[in-house]
Amino acid sequence: MLKRLFFPLLIATFVLSAISHYLHWGPEITFGLSAIAIVFVAGFLGKATEAVAHYAGQRLGGFLNATFGNAAELIISIFLIKEGMFAIVKASLTGAIIGNLLLVLGVSALAGGLKYKEQRFNIHLAGQNASLMMLAVIALFIPAVFVKTENIPETQTMTMSIIVAAFLIFAYLGWLFYSMFTHKDMLEDHVDTQADHGEQPAWSRMRSILYLILATVMVAFVSEWLVHTLDTFTSRFGLSELFVGAFVVAIIGNAAEHSAAVMLAMKNKMGAAVEIAVGSSLQIALFVAPVLVFVSLLFQENMNLIFTTIELAAIGVAVLIATSISRDGATTWYEGKLLLIVYVILGVAFYFV
Amino acid sequence: MLKRLFFPLLIATFVLSAISHYLHWGPEITFGLSAIAIVFVAGFLGKATEAVAHYAGQRLGGFLNATFGNAAELIISIFLIKEGMFAIVKASLTGAIIGNLLLVLGVSALAGGLKYKEQRFNIHLAGQNASLMMLAVIALFIPAVFVKTENIPETQTMTMSIIVAAFLIFAYLGWLFYSMFTHKDMLEDHVDTQADHGEQPAWSRMRSILYLILATVMVAFVSEWLVHTLDTFTSRFGLSELFVGAFVVAIIGNAAEHSAAVMLAMKNKMGAAVEIAVGSSLQIALFVAPVLVFVSLLFQENMNLIFTTIELAAIGVAVLIATSISRDGATTWYEGKLLLIVYVILGVAFYFV
Amino acid sequence: MLKRLFFPLLIATFVLSAISHYLHWGPEITFGLSAIAIVFVAGFLGKATEAVAHYAGQRLGGFLNATFGNAAELIISIFLIKEGMFAIVKASLTGAIIGNLLLVLGVSALAGGLKYKEQRFNIHLAGQNASLMMLAVIALFIPAVFVKTENIPETQTMTMSIIVAAFLIFAYLGWLFYSMFTHKDMLEDHVDTQADHGEQPAWSRMRSILYLILATVMVAFVSEWLVHTLDTFTSRFGLSELFVGAFVVAIIGNAAEHSAAVMLAMKNKMGAAVEIAVGSSLQIALFVAPVLVFVSLLFQENMNLIFTTIELAAIGVAVLIATSISRDGATTWYEGKLLLIVYVILGVAFYFV
Repeated sequence: MLKRLFFPLLIATFVLSAISHYLHWGPEITFGLSAIAIVFVAGFLGKATEAVAHYAGQRLGGFLNATFGNAAELIISIFLIKEGMFAIVKASLTGAIIGNLLLVLGVSALAGGLKYKEQRFNIHLAGQNASLMMLAVIALFIPAVFVKTENIPETQTMTMSIIVAAFLIFAYLGWLFYSMFTHKDMLEDHVDTQADHGEQPAWSRMRSILYLILATVMVAFVSEWLVHTLDTFTSRFGLSELFVGAFVVAIIGNAAEHSAAVMLAMKNKMGAAVEIAVGSSLQIALFVAPVLVFVSLLFQENMNLIFTTIELAAIGVAVLIATSISRDGATTWYEGKLLLIVYVILGVAFYFV
Repeated sequence: MLKRLFFPLLIATFVLSAISHYLHWGPEITFGLSAIAIVFVAGFLGKATEAVAHYAGQRLGGFLNATFGNAAELIISIFLIKEGMFAIVKASLTGAIIGNLLLVLGVSALAGGLKYKEQRFNIHLAGQNASLMMLAVIALFIPAVFVKTENIPETQTMTMSIIVAAFLIFAYLGWLFYSMFTHKDMLEDHVDTQADHGEQPAWSRMRSILYLILATVMVAFVSEWLVHTLDTFTSRFGLSELFVGAFVVAIIGNAAEHSAAVMLAMKNKMGAAVEIAVGSSLQIALFVAPVLVFVSLLFQENMNLIFTTIELAAIGVAVLIATSISRDGATTWYEGKLLLIVYVILGVAFYFV
Repeated sequence: MLKRLFFPLLIATFVLSAISHYLHWGPEITFGLSAIAIVFVAGFLGKATEAVAHYAGQRLGGFLNATFGNAAELIISIFLIKEGMFAIVKASLTGAIIGNLLLVLGVSALAGGLKYKEQRFNIHLAGQNASLMMLAVIALFIPAVFVKTENIPETQTMTMSIIVAAFLIFAYLGWLFYSMFTHKDMLEDHVDTQADHGEQPAWSRMRSILYLILATVMVAFVSEWLVHTLDTFTSRFGLSELFVGAFVVAIIGNAAEHSAAVMLAMKNKMGAAVEIAVGSSLQIALFVAPVLVFVSLLFQENMNLIFTTIELAAIGVAVLIATSISRDGATTWYEGKLLLIVYVILGVAFYFV
């Protein structure tokens, strides 16, 4: 019954929130409609990802999902950089990283863990992910420490940021080459290899890829409509821009990854859920953030890679606890709960700034 | 011979130090008598714990021991909070955490390691303990960083502390539920399962539990008498309150855990020793400290959760090295030595403040 | 062909750079000649180490190499301390630690990893190395935090440094006893045990040890001649003393370890390569640095153990990423690349100070 109503409701809520956004029905109505719409489009994306993962293997499926999810993040950030709103960009990048590592991974581990006692995934991948997350923390932390303790002038800070950004992109491309080609077999989940590759016709695979692209585009649009209504809420509820950027925007912006990861975890495909959550944070830190530094060179004001102390502290502790929990290649419900508690503690701290 | 004299000496030294304390024979005499008495009561507690662990399994035995050990800590702290002596409370909580992770665990690993080449314990438990200790560090670190860099007013700091404290207690209760119920089997030591459960009559079990309670109460009393003599020593030897709180009080206050853990380690029950040492630190950080924040609400002045930079640094490095050493589920004599050296380095640094 | 020319070229370049140094042919010529000479003497050292490792086992061979390599470091530092140039000594110690952990280990893992898909080594050793590196970080970090936040006077800082230095040497001697005697078997690489110990006559073993000593002495000399030419380059290229000390001097000073480690890694003896790289950093942090504190007591001005914030940050992140990568007892080409990227990021940051 609910299954048969899914597509009509998906289309109806999507179209209604589009109309509300473009015909300016007011922020309250647009917020309400697109908040409902995002539940359906995120659900659609989850299903599409799962279908692709079925053919592509858990890792490639997870990677595709992370990439499509972060495309929206990248596009929104470019508009913000054009306006010179660097503080909000950095806050939302921070929010995306900690949201994926703590909220998405936490809910996945908790929801999956309530159903399965222990959920295993590739231990090599967990170790490599941990090292990559540490590289990201180091690359953000080192320039900040040097700039803050040694009074380095702004032009040199920008040069330093550009060089570090170039090396981060270089590291990310190397990681893709490594995980997709030279060491693909070592980093794969062996749990799911009995998947019936190729038993279904080619057009069925094509269709699931098209669905994935369509679902991602829909999520991107609805996310943006929602974000546009936030200004009103920020002023009405007295929330700081930092809090809205790092938590509200990040939660909405990650709805896609969120629902996809949780659905996979509940089907005991924790490897794919981890790939989405951790893969998405890695992509933000090692690819989206440095690309934005280069993008900012096209505009009048340039954005450096220096994050604030509290942003660095938040990213640092998120990486620390996520790494500690996932390093053994397994999660349980309680580990999910721990991640969520750290997320709440960070949320409380950001709220009071 | 020594065995037959144990109980008479235990009672004699206990009674003598009680008389000296209540009849005010002077701090020097009370210190000397209760220092001797604590050796015997701690030994008694060690034996009682071992007897209970024999029936209850290593983990529950260790948990009971940690709880009874920290009851004294909690009671003393409440009296200090009533007097508004927050700095000493935080110093002694810091001292209890680092004392358990470095001194108790270090001496256990060293003493056990001199007898057995390598002592193994449950590797799952070691990993979970590491994640929980990180949660504790994060929960103390994040509010401190935010308060120190963003100039958050005192009332908001107190609100933040209360919320964080509530989530820490929530995390601790979840941990008990997880480790005692849903994942009990995964976190147990399988080394000792051949223990003759239930071969002895029920009254024998009852007796060992009664002994455990009695021993804990005796330790609590003698510890307090000892602590009362410290003021004189502080002024006479020119030690700072911080040093006395974090090292002298903590060493005496942990005498119970200390002797119990070392005795278990020397009988190759390293799992139970780790449970006492790490379990006790976790209980201090995730339960005792946040409970004290709530207790302080009953009095005029309220205590927040913001520790000083050097206290956070001490807790942070203690967790780092204890985690690094125990993560592989095994200890050797040299790892014990490393923990003790870190303890001495911290002691030296606190001494010079 | 190249093989037959090796020894003549080794002796020719060594003698020529010696003449250029002592007859003052000028810094440019001395730099050029000794830069070529160091390629040959480092190659010679690599071969000699390999021959000794063949008899002595990978670990003892690695240890011998690290010790001979750091002898040069120690001697140069003593001359600098005599002149009161403490900042350069600390910068070059920092550079030696991060150079070994990131550059030497990174190039070894990358070069070895391009040839072998995954290179395994003793996982116990990796864990113990990680704990020891953490001890080193803690021992440098704790006094610095206390001194910087609590305004401890200089005389007390010096006393604190002496006590901490004594305990670091105590830790290092314990580690030698542990890894060479009590737990030798647990920390050995079992990959290479089929080595034909004792099949060759005794004089052949003697000769390889003599070659090792000779090669080390030659490296020490050429390194010093090179270092003497650096002043000219520092002023001509506008580099800071900090950058030259931490990067240029450290790279040249570690040429020996570097070439030996890379050669071993390319022969799939990653265990020995790790031993050289990590063992050398440990020796610098736990032995050379504290010994220098004691040596400085013989001169008028004394050197404490307090490093600058950026030096501590650099050492901290190097240990973090090297530990994360080596903890699983295996390396791949991409992990080598990650280490090198962190090294470049640190280099860029130091360059801009």
